[in-house]
Amino acid sequence: MSESKWNRGVAVVGVGLSKFGAFKEKNSRDLFVEAYLDLINSMHRYDPKKVEAFYLGNFSSDQFEKQAHLAPILASWVGLSPIPTVRIEDACASGGVAIRQAALAIASGQYDVVLVGGVEKMTDLEIAAVTEALATAADTQFEVPAGFTFPGFYAAMASAYMHEYNAQRDAFYHVSIKNHSNGALNDKAQFGQTIRSIMESKKARAAQKGRPVPEWEDEIDFLSDPKGNPMIAWPMTLFDCSPVSDGAAVALLVSEDLASTFTDTPIYLVGSGQASDGALPERETLSSIPAAEEAGRQAYHMANLSPKDIDLAEVHDCFTIAEIIATEDLGFFERGAGWQAAIEGKTARKGDHPVNTSGGLKSKGHPVGATGVGQVAEIWKQLNGIAGERQVPGDPKIGLTHNVGGTGQTCVVNIFERRDLNG
Amino acid sequence: MSESKWNRGVAVVGVGLSKFGAFKEKNSRDLFVEAYLDLINSMHRYDPKKVEAFYLGNFSSDQFEKQAHLAPILASWVGLSPIPTVRIEDACASGGVAIRQAALAIASGQYDVVLVGGVEKMTDLEIAAVTEALATAADTQFEVPAGFTFPGFYAAMASAYMHEYNAQRDAFYHVSIKNHSNGALNDKAQFGQTIRSIMESKKARAAQKGRPVPEWEDEIDFLSDPKGNPMIAWPMTLFDCSPVSDGAAVALLVSEDLASTFTDTPIYLVGSGQASDGALPERETLSSIPAAEEAGRQAYHMANLSPKDIDLAEVHDCFTIAEIIATEDLGFFERGAGWQAAIEGKTARKGDHPVNTSGGLKSKGHPVGATGVGQVAEIWKQLNGIAGERQVPGDPKIGLTHNVGGTGQTCVVNIFERRDLNG
Repeated sequence: MSESKWNRGVAVVGVGLSKFGAFKEKNSRDLFVEAYLDLINSMHRYDPKKVEAFYLGNFSSDQFEKQAHLAPILASWVGLSPIPTVRIEDACASGGVAIRQAALAIASGQYDVVLVGGVEKMTDLEIAAVTEALATAADTQFEVPAGFTFPGFYAAMASAYMHEYNAQRDAFYHVSIKNHSNGALNDKAQFGQTIRSIMESKKARAAQKGRPVPEWEDEIDFLSDPKGNPMIAWPMTLFDCSPVSDGAAVALLVSEDLASTFTDTPIYLVGSGQASDGALPERETLSSIPAAEEAGRQAYHMANLSPKDIDLAEVHDCFTIAEIIATEDLGFFERGAGWQAAIEGKTARKGDHPVNTSGGLKSKGHPVGATGVGQVAEIWKQLNGIAGERQVPGDPKIGLTHNVGGTGQTCVVNIFERRDLNG
Repeated sequence: MSESKWNRGVAVVGVGLSKFGAFKEKNSRDLFVEAYLDLINSMHRYDPKKVEAFYLGNFSSDQFEKQAHLAPILASWVGLSPIPTVRIEDACASGGVAIRQAALAIASGQYDVVLVGGVEKMTDLEIAAVTEALATAADTQFEVPAGFTFPGFYAAMASAYMHEYNAQRDAFYHVSIKNHSNGALNDKAQFGQTIRSIMESKKARAAQKGRPVPEWEDEIDFLSDPKGNPMIAWPMTLFDCSPVSDGAAVALLVSEDLASTFTDTPIYLVGSGQASDGALPERETLSSIPAAEEAGRQAYHMANLSPKDIDLAEVHDCFTIAEIIATEDLGFFERGAGWQAAIEGKTARKGDHPVNTSGGLKSKGHPVGATGVGQVAEIWKQLNGIAGERQVPGDPKIGLTHNVGGTGQTCVVNIFERRDLNG
């Protein structure tokens, strides 16, 4: 952290995830406990008495579950009272911002050990309520009255992008297919098992008939079927949209000097940036997200790294167009080159710039407040070489998370690095 | 800050307040702009380009105004984009926690200059919606289903307190009368002008008839009239309850070393503490708030001060019983002695322990997210000797704020000190 102004460094020493999906029987507390137990069970040296504060990313349990003031409730639920608890809300970037605020609190010297959680319970509520609640993340004076909902916003951005760069709609399919094929290898992903089952069946049939066993990417072909993949808001189809999800994620952050007392495999937060913006009508262009570019710039500067140093990234693909724009905002590709890169497989697991190896919001699910924290969990697994079937090859050492609220009113980018003990 | 673990100190260099009250024509943005302009107009050396981040305390504009993700919107509204913006939600403690988080972010080294805002728009909505929204700050699994609303919670605490300490109901009247008499001297207070008008009329009539001019405290006697002051939840009457309010407050926080470049009259955040708790049914007693005691303990320890060093305090009197309990949780009085102290006038402006010189939540109003930030504004004015007619005598140097979420699930205490330039 040569360029950092932070007074001390911060490391991640453990992560936990609930299954993401639609769970009629689970509320926010249940999801959080599931993620918390996943953390505890994966750590050998976890001691709850050492946790000094709890930061929670949550978009709107006020609206979804009629439960505000969720942070102290969740802390109490797992026996962490009376530590200070803070809920962070920045729409869909709530989780990523919670990670950053927890890290800043450690850097301040106030805390050495902070638990960060993210949670959202969104399904099994009245559909009208979910749509209405999500719309509150947009500007109710200048965006909502114009008739926009989030698929509409991102559809407008996709249209502008296609127009500006003469991009082909096929690029969106490629993002969706890639993310679903990654998610099929992630047992926490909302659509993981579904897609995996389809593929296993296809493989079995091919073997039975003596035909070549298909690759994931070749065979997830249902997206081209308009009956199974209807248009939502042109050019965004159903499979261009992330789902409504329930889920929770946690990460344990500690001051750099304490990392080795918690784990042999810490990853270090070496860069962090955050920026904001006004409503979409105020933007000069719809084909990029300025606050994401600014957050990335800050994070690279702090880490003294450039886009080419990033071995893999979890980006905010709430819609497929958002992933393409993110890969440009973050400098992985030139402006207007992201769509072609997606088609060419450059963002695939084995490509030059692996993106959303977890399956992304698209396949893994998008329980809003949990998303940004869940991204860190994937980076943790990949950098530690424990991502199983979806492990990125080549021993990745540096991973990036990119979390967006609204249509870019909040953007936060965090960069993590694994340091070899003898390095 | 001899005992502090913070990596550097933090100062307040300016404050701003909107009028608190019920304003049919104003929404959150209008209220925030009013407070922001009050800050700018009161500072000679304010430069918006120096502001590096914005922290917003807000309880639930999601529910009240159907507007989540409010932090970047407000920042954009006053031209501060693209600085990072973070909304903090800890129910009625959101503002106080936002102050603390902003201070930690400065202590981390990341930012030198941070604007903190607090805002809530609560009136001119359907009454049912306000009651329902406020109830989401309670535990929806273990408190709300038992039939409690917030007046009920605090009524239960008042009953427990009276039982435990053989306290007289008169004590509650005294808190209310004191706070209304303070608020009558505060032109930002929701009930300031109303009470002042009554008093001015009484004074004029007394002068006309050659009778002695009455003191505030003697004459705000309408509270004893059950027709004007009906029972809400025994023993809490209407005038034991803080109102539903609209309002906003801002404070400009900077790193200690920069304070003098912004103002000649900074006040320093010398102590800060925060704690959490579970739902009310889990408590061993209802006659104290353990998280408030713990937050106070942390703040005193960091500041290396004791309760007797505090020259004045703004405490969270959402109900009159809450102020009495606060004065004990904070160590101003022994357990069970707070009610008698209130009757004896010890917490009056000219008493030994002035509390809520602004009028408190009771008279000033309680726009939830703004409350904790507004408390800092009062301490700023008192420590700088610019509180006008309600100025605490004796040149106060150390002030404390105490902000409570729910029934004590979140508590935050901050201590501020004026340092004489030659000191």
